Amino acid sequence: MTYEQYSSRRLAVSGALAERGCDAVLVTAPVNVRYLTGFTGSNGAVLLTRDSVSLATDGRYDEQAQRETGLTPTITRALLRTLVTDARTSGARSLAIERDHVTLAHFEAIADAAEGELTLTPCAGLVENERMRKDETELGCLRRAAAIADAAFTAVKQTVSPGMTERELADALEEAMRRGGADAPAFATIVAAGVNGAEPHHQPTSYALALGDLVTVDMGARVDGYHSDMTRTFAVGPVDDWQRELYGLVDAAQRAGCAAVVAGAGTAEVDAAARAVIENAGHGEHFVHGVGHGVGLQIHESPMLFGASEVVLADGMVVTVEPGIYVPGRGGIRIEDTLIVSADAPEVITRAARGL
Amino acid sequence: MTYEQYSSRRLAVSGALAERGCDAVLVTAPVNVRYLTGFTGSNGAVLLTRDSVSLATDGRYDEQAQRETGLTPTITRALLRTLVTDARTSGARSLAIERDHVTLAHFEAIADAAEGELTLTPCAGLVENERMRKDETELGCLRRAAAIADAAFTAVKQTVSPGMTERELADALEEAMRRGGADAPAFATIVAAGVNGAEPHHQPTSYALALGDLVTVDMGARVDGYHSDMTRTFAVGPVDDWQRELYGLVDAAQRAGCAAVVAGAGTAEVDAAARAVIENAGHGEHFVHGVGHGVGLQIHESPMLFGASEVVLADGMVVTVEPGIYVPGRGGIRIEDTLIVSADAPEVITRAARGL
Repeated sequence: MTYEQYSSRRLAVSGALAERGCDAVLVTAPVNVRYLTGFTGSNGAVLLTRDSVSLATDGRYDEQAQRETGLTPTITRALLRTLVTDARTSGARSLAIERDHVTLAHFEAIADAAEGELTLTPCAGLVENERMRKDETELGCLRRAAAIADAAFTAVKQTVSPGMTERELADALEEAMRRGGADAPAFATIVAAGVNGAEPHHQPTSYALALGDLVTVDMGARVDGYHSDMTRTFAVGPVDDWQRELYGLVDAAQRAGCAAVVAGAGTAEVDAAARAVIENAGHGEHFVHGVGHGVGLQIHESPMLFGASEVVLADGMVVTVEPGIYVPGRGGIRIEDTLIVSADAPEVITRAARGL
Repeated sequence: MTYEQYSSRRLAVSGALAERGCDAVLVTAPVNVRYLTGFTGSNGAVLLTRDSVSLATDGRYDEQAQRETGLTPTITRALLRTLVTDARTSGARSLAIERDHVTLAHFEAIADAAEGELTLTPCAGLVENERMRKDETELGCLRRAAAIADAAFTAVKQTVSPGMTERELADALEEAMRRGGADAPAFATIVAAGVNGAEPHHQPTSYALALGDLVTVDMGARVDGYHSDMTRTFAVGPVDDWQRELYGLVDAAQRAGCAAVVAGAGTAEVDAAARAVIENAGHGEHFVHGVGHGVGLQIHESPMLFGASEVVLADGMVVTVEPGIYVPGRGGIRIEDTLIVSADAPEVITRAARGL
């Protein structure tokens, strides 16, 4: 990422201020600060007016912030007070703040510093909306992250045999991703075998894989801040009829969801396309989550793909499609890919082989 | 942890409601939900009245929540609305909410569900204050986590030689912690060599360690949700006079800080004790952060140890003491231990050898 790319992102966000009735925005969510400046520290905030940018952080990050952003940060313990005061002295009248990130405690500090001279306007999606469509640099990171997870899954799956524990399998996958060039796993790898598969977000235990188990692996790699996300379910040894039947159902639902991913489609339509397959087979109650989510600097980000979502898919968005069936006391199946949206068929960037 | 332990924590929090003028509390911070119930999922909320508890989560976590908590969760997409409605129907009049966690968006949802029948009272530290003093189960997890990091550091340090990159060293440390029984690293391991040491939170790069470098390693393990935290700075090969002098200064400051850790002392006094050593030697401007922080279910939690902090240390609190000196363009040194506070000398649970 170049200074110009960050600068252009800042222009996009400040350019959208007028339609919100604001002339400045205070960005405090760390991931949004990173998106707008490149700063990766844990404590930073950014003020954008229509023609300026200010970054504030604390003394731990002075050198790092300069190196990462090309900006000269203000070093302070009172980030919010400092930037709100900057906004006032810049002549701003109405300050946008992040509705989904500012806490009641932060709001009090901001209002205190505003001293009644600034109107505070809580806004949703100020930066998140810009983050939905990825540029080529971001897509490159996402493709690399997905390829690292693909290779790790493919290599480690060949070593799976009865007696291996969920924890050992998760450790092997994470180690393979790191050796493959991941900065870290994208999230705590999920390995759910046998009846544990009935918990969509089961964390790996000392349970030992047994013949006849289905194993669900949900994994991803992080590269330069960008996350990949993929789920595969496979069998250890022989497959029962009920397992084959449910797998076929999830597979068909996932393909139906992927087929609905196209620029111009509503995110709720993608959910509905996958859900209809599962509901029509009488398993609606066992598909207990939305069909997918955006992925980028966060593992879960806009757009969310579920029934009540109103976002329209656009070129360059990156989303997962991951229907599942979870039968309490029996087990579960989920298949997940990550896709780049375009006007044509989406590009599927998670490419590890699927199938029982 | 047993159901009784969680139940007793809930009683402590609900017992403190009266003094806040409230008769119920809505807990939404995931780490606080975990502390009060044992639920580890990413999406949950808890309502405590003076004599009841309700847990809400979404469909992904139905089985898991029951297994982890022994409670029967309400499964819903509208967690806040559901629990606020529960509070109203329970006859509560004044609902405490988490000032440091509730966002403006969440506040709107809560206020909407309250329908004017509940007074909403933003409170700080409702659960965090209870979390400061650890019980024996928690101390056991923290000691195990610290011992795992100690062993990993000790083993991997013997393999360090010029040419090894920061990234390779960090990977080796994290791998050793996992093999030693850590669920995960407590945070992204910091390895900062040579001039990179001037950045307190430097993330490991492809920089290759060279003879004459100081290397700062800040690492920890996570065990059953509890984090350890330790920093060591050591030399690769020969040591210059300026390095030895600054190391001695940080070492003395760190020992002064540790000596000030005793039940009844103010957290600001600990900061002052360590800072005085560095300031008296003329390096005050190079010690750019607070002297330490509490550690437990979060890597940074109450009590914070810095100049403006007003908490008084008490038996069973667990805090770090980690002064550092950072010289731009030259390098840095930090030494950090984690201590259990008592009426006598603190128990130092990070025990890896220190020294250049």
